[in-house]
Amino acid sequence: MPAAAPTLAVWAGPKTAEYVALFRTAAPDIHAVAADDITDPSGIEWLAGWRLPLGYFARFPQLNVFFGLGAGVDAVLMRDDLAPHVQVVKLADAGMAPQMAEFALMGVLHWQRRMSEYSQQQAACEWKPLRPRLRADVRVSVLGLGAIGGEVARTLADFGYRVSGWSRSQKSIAGVRCMQGADALRSLLTDTNVLVNMLPSTPETRGLINHEVLAALPVSAYVVNGSRGDQLDVEALLKLLDSGHLSGALLDVFATEPLPADSPLWRHANIRITPHVAAATLPAEAVTQIVANIRRVARGEKALGAVQRQRGY
Amino acid sequence: MPAAAPTLAVWAGPKTAEYVALFRTAAPDIHAVAADDITDPSGIEWLAGWRLPLGYFARFPQLNVFFGLGAGVDAVLMRDDLAPHVQVVKLADAGMAPQMAEFALMGVLHWQRRMSEYSQQQAACEWKPLRPRLRADVRVSVLGLGAIGGEVARTLADFGYRVSGWSRSQKSIAGVRCMQGADALRSLLTDTNVLVNMLPSTPETRGLINHEVLAALPVSAYVVNGSRGDQLDVEALLKLLDSGHLSGALLDVFATEPLPADSPLWRHANIRITPHVAAATLPAEAVTQIVANIRRVARGEKALGAVQRQRGY
Repeated sequence: MPAAAPTLAVWAGPKTAEYVALFRTAAPDIHAVAADDITDPSGIEWLAGWRLPLGYFARFPQLNVFFGLGAGVDAVLMRDDLAPHVQVVKLADAGMAPQMAEFALMGVLHWQRRMSEYSQQQAACEWKPLRPRLRADVRVSVLGLGAIGGEVARTLADFGYRVSGWSRSQKSIAGVRCMQGADALRSLLTDTNVLVNMLPSTPETRGLINHEVLAALPVSAYVVNGSRGDQLDVEALLKLLDSGHLSGALLDVFATEPLPADSPLWRHANIRITPHVAAATLPAEAVTQIVANIRRVARGEKALGAVQRQRGY
Repeated sequence: MPAAAPTLAVWAGPKTAEYVALFRTAAPDIHAVAADDITDPSGIEWLAGWRLPLGYFARFPQLNVFFGLGAGVDAVLMRDDLAPHVQVVKLADAGMAPQMAEFALMGVLHWQRRMSEYSQQQAACEWKPLRPRLRADVRVSVLGLGAIGGEVARTLADFGYRVSGWSRSQKSIAGVRCMQGADALRSLLTDTNVLVNMLPSTPETRGLINHEVLAALPVSAYVVNGSRGDQLDVEALLKLLDSGHLSGALLDVFATEPLPADSPLWRHANIRITPHVAAATLPAEAVTQIVANIRRVARGEKALGAVQRQRGY
C-alpha cells in the first residue's frame, strides 16, 4: 500500500460530492476522488462508500481496503463482487451512538409513560389516569453491547432505568448488568419490560428475535428495533401484539427497505414506524474517523473497526 | 401550636386510608386521623389534603396550617372557605420533579426526532427519511424554574439540549441560560424549538401563554404543558397548529379537568393528551416531607414550601 499520495475513491450516491469535499478539507494529502470520475480504476486500493451499486466492487481489482460509511456491514459482506481478501473497515460510531440512544430512550419513555394506552384513550376522548410507572422499576434489556449498543445501555442506565445488556463476548459497563450466552438470554427475557435490539446482523443473529424469544417476554412488554430488520420475526411480533401479550413496538429497520406499502406493520395501532433514521452517519465525523484509520494503516497499524469477515462484524 | 401529641387531620379522597397509614408509620407521635372520622373537628389545627370538597375547610375553625399533597396550590388559594390567616404549605417536589423531567423530555424527543411527521407518513404508508436534528441544535425554553421547572431544565441540559429558562426571580442553574422579565421572554420565544411550561398558576401567569406568545415562536415549534391548563390559550394553540405555524403539542393539564369530551383538543392529529399524569405525588415522599415540616414548625422554624399567599405560590 503506497504511503504517499494514495488515492481514495469515494462513492456515496447523492452524497458523493459532499464526502469528497470533506475528505479533501480534512486531509489534503489524501487524494479523494469521486469513484465515478476515475477513468482508470484498475489501480485503486482504497474505497470509501455506502450502498454501492451491485457489481461496483468489480471495477477495483486492486482494492485493498473498503471503508464503510456506516456501522453495519452485513449488506457489504453478503455481496459476491467483494473479493475475500479485501479488508472491510466499519465506522465505530461516527455520531450514531448518541442518536441511537435517543431513539431507544424514546421507546422506553413511551412504554414507561403508557403512551400507547393514553393514545387509545385519546382516540376515545377518555380521561382515565393510569398507575404511574417509576423509572427505577422499568427493566430494559439491550441486545448487543458494541460501540452503539454499549452507549445505548449506558445512556438508559444513567437516566435511571434498570438496564441489562446481552452480548456475544463478555462486556463490562458501569451500572449495566452485562450477560452473555443462550441461558442468560432466556432468563433476561422474563425480566424485561422493554427489549432494545442493537445487535449487528450476522449469520448468528438473523432471525434471533423469533416467536420463542418474544413470547418469553412478560405480558405488556415493548420492543425497540434500531439495528437490523432481519433479526426480528415480524409475523411473531404481530401475533403477540394482537393477542395482547406485547403492548407495542418502535421499529426503524425492516427485512425489506423501504417497507412495502402493503406491509401490515404500517397499519398496526401499537407499532410506530420510522424509515431507517434511528441513527444517521454524520459525514464530518465519519470522514474524521476514516482519515485517522488511513493514517493508522499507512503507519502499518491496524484500522480501528476492522471487520472479522468470518465473524460478520 | 401544641408541640406534643398534635392531631393531623388527613383528607385525600380515596387515598385517605393510605395516607393515614403512611403518616402513622413515619411518625407514630403525630396523631394522624382521617378527617371524616373526627367527631369534633373544632380544635383541629393541622390538616393535610388535596382536592378537598368545597366548604370542607369551614369545618376547622382553629385551622393553623394546611399541608397540600401537591406542588400546585392555585386551586386551594382561590377557595373562599380557607381563612386568610391559615398557613398553606406546598410540597417542594415529593418525587414529582423527575417525572416531570421525563414528561418534558418525551415532548422534546418527539419534536427532535420528528415523530409527528413520521406518524403522518406512517398513516400514509410513506417511507421518507427526513433531515436529522441534532441534540445540540435543539433549543428548549422552560418557563418556571422552581423545584420542578429547575429540575426539568437541568435534566434537559444534562441530556445535551440547548436549554434556556425563564422565571420571575433570577435563578442560576449550571448549563441553563437563565432569564427573567418580559423583554427577555420575547427574545427567548424567537429562539425556541420546544416551549415547556412549568410555571405555577398565579394571577400573573394565568393566560400568559396567549396568541402573541405562541405566535412569537418560530415556525414548527412545539409546546409542552405540564403545569396548569389556565396558562395556555388553547384557542390560539389550535389556530396556530392549523395554520402550520406550530407543529404540535403535548398537553397534560387543562383549564377544565377532566377535559370535556367535546373539546377539539382530543381530536387534533398533532396534539397528544395525557390526563394530568405528568407528575404524580408519591405518597411516601409526600408524607416524609410533611412530617419533616411538622417537626420544623414544632421547633418554631418555618416550614419549607410555605406559600406566600399574596404572591400565589
